[in-house]
Amino acid sequence: METIHVATKQKEYDIFIEHGLLKQLGKLISQVWSARKVLVITDSNVGPLYLSAVNDQLNGAGFQTTDITVPAGESSKSWDVLQQTIKACADSHLSRVDGIIALGGGVIGDLAGLTASLWLRGISFIQIPTSLLAQVDSSVGGKTAIDIDSGKNLVGSFYQPDLVVIDPDTLKTLSSRVTVEGYGEVVKCAAMNGGDFWDLIEQVQSADDILKNAVALIHHSISFKAKVVSQDEREGNLRCLLNFGHTIGHGVEFAAHGRLFHGEAVAVGTSQVCKQFERFGLTAKGTSAKVTAALQAVGLPLTDPVLGSPAMYAAMRHDKKVRGKQLTFVYLKKIGEPAFYPVNVDHLEDWLQLDQPSGK
Amino acid sequence: METIHVATKQKEYDIFIEHGLLKQLGKLISQVWSARKVLVITDSNVGPLYLSAVNDQLNGAGFQTTDITVPAGESSKSWDVLQQTIKACADSHLSRVDGIIALGGGVIGDLAGLTASLWLRGISFIQIPTSLLAQVDSSVGGKTAIDIDSGKNLVGSFYQPDLVVIDPDTLKTLSSRVTVEGYGEVVKCAAMNGGDFWDLIEQVQSADDILKNAVALIHHSISFKAKVVSQDEREGNLRCLLNFGHTIGHGVEFAAHGRLFHGEAVAVGTSQVCKQFERFGLTAKGTSAKVTAALQAVGLPLTDPVLGSPAMYAAMRHDKKVRGKQLTFVYLKKIGEPAFYPVNVDHLEDWLQLDQPSGK
Repeated sequence: METIHVATKQKEYDIFIEHGLLKQLGKLISQVWSARKVLVITDSNVGPLYLSAVNDQLNGAGFQTTDITVPAGESSKSWDVLQQTIKACADSHLSRVDGIIALGGGVIGDLAGLTASLWLRGISFIQIPTSLLAQVDSSVGGKTAIDIDSGKNLVGSFYQPDLVVIDPDTLKTLSSRVTVEGYGEVVKCAAMNGGDFWDLIEQVQSADDILKNAVALIHHSISFKAKVVSQDEREGNLRCLLNFGHTIGHGVEFAAHGRLFHGEAVAVGTSQVCKQFERFGLTAKGTSAKVTAALQAVGLPLTDPVLGSPAMYAAMRHDKKVRGKQLTFVYLKKIGEPAFYPVNVDHLEDWLQLDQPSGK
Repeated sequence: METIHVATKQKEYDIFIEHGLLKQLGKLISQVWSARKVLVITDSNVGPLYLSAVNDQLNGAGFQTTDITVPAGESSKSWDVLQQTIKACADSHLSRVDGIIALGGGVIGDLAGLTASLWLRGISFIQIPTSLLAQVDSSVGGKTAIDIDSGKNLVGSFYQPDLVVIDPDTLKTLSSRVTVEGYGEVVKCAAMNGGDFWDLIEQVQSADDILKNAVALIHHSISFKAKVVSQDEREGNLRCLLNFGHTIGHGVEFAAHGRLFHGEAVAVGTSQVCKQFERFGLTAKGTSAKVTAALQAVGLPLTDPVLGSPAMYAAMRHDKKVRGKQLTFVYLKKIGEPAFYPVNVDHLEDWLQLDQPSGK
């Protein structure tokens, strides 16, 4: 079993990665939690597949379980659904020594993490991410959130889990589009990390290759993120590296109104930022070709009709990471060497040279 | 100016206490905050008295201000009002380098603190508590919260301010009942602290005496709390000392459905727990007479018709501090010497010997 140990100021915890771990869940969780009440939070896609087996494992290990299944999809990151999960905590009479388990993708991780951080001002929490995106992206960093009308992830907390259990077998039940979306985040990490990790990326030529190499890809991605986050828990400079591809990506995702998945928007953002900085001469020649080839190999998009739209620019200006007027882009000097570049948000339109579809 | 320095794991900050500090607010806040946007959160009682002066002070010191006034009273510690204060953050375009100021009593401190902890996963925050209860109770400890149908303060966070500014002149605009309520918390701290602090309590014989000695009473209370909280930020054993009088107090407050103020319920709880443990022989003889005399001198209640009601017991069983079946009471061995005593919640009715009104 692959294990990554994450040390943050709040706490230390392990991430376990291996095929078939869901079948050992009771034993794994018993290693970090004494007997307690556990509320499992899942969604309408994941619950029917795994909830019953997860409950059996937990009950078999002496945990008393209750559960709540919320609608699948981003719309569950809302005040309304948060109130429902908090009510489930109350109805389950969860005390300070009890715990919450997130069983699902990134939406469930964000929602359940926020629920755990708020109930009685914080109870213990375990992540079982079931999508590739959640496995590589939301199991490290302690970010929790819901969305509000003004934007995504504007309300949330930093809250660390006690354990993360990743069973790549769950990827087999995802649609190919959902697996591939998560791979957008993997490529983002690999391009900044370089080395063995990037070499592996160059061998991945299809969605099927992602599944075959899942343990290694997840392990590499998380190790990279854990290294960054351990050194900078609350979004100082170093942690901003993880925004690579996200600055344009968030704008595109917002402007696409749900048509693009998060990882697809990140792929567009990653591709665009590489091309832009290579044109500037700040990125080594040929780098953006390598990155876009990796994304394209699995069918990820490199551009989108909303690129350059007023809605995209407006969303970029309201990015959480804007400080005063300054928005900091992450770019690559070359594969394995990321760097920062600040831009005044008032000059975004002039500064960005986007590679729009059909040469617009 | 009296200054108390509080050091927690999250951060260190100062508490300033002096008559007339509101008139120096701009200067004081400039010492800890660079120029930034500031959202002032206040309520319909406090806003009309101080908001305009506070805004003038902030603007004069170069801060750009917006504000939101919520209805006065506990009902503002709700999901609905939290959504309104979060929307005010969005509408004010607060970024991660901006800040929130709580101008009001405990309700505003709890609500504004939670808002600050959740907006963009946490922005900076300053407390200007204007009631005696908030000054002694909610400016130390970093507790934020809202209430839900199942109980008070069940949803919240631990979040520390950058600064607390206490101007006891604000007490002059409170009703006598509201000042006296806060004094219930002061007596609670003094009884555990003993020494000079308790000597001062024995000299306070009226609501007017509270105002005359406000700086010293607030300073002593906060110093006691800060000492406890600095050593134990997240409700381990030591911090549980602060529950003295609150275990019965919360039950009584809940059962009274808003008829009793928090500090009044704490006075009832403090009085009852002293009498109970003195009857048991665990508290030195004469101790409960001293404590009840201090409470009675300013007109605080020692008992209440809801004492011993099924609603009171039900609320005590759902106390956040119940671990498994165990509820831990804080009692006094004598003035200045608190101790813990665990009780099984299934035996509460048999165990508690309450001193009910009219000898019921």
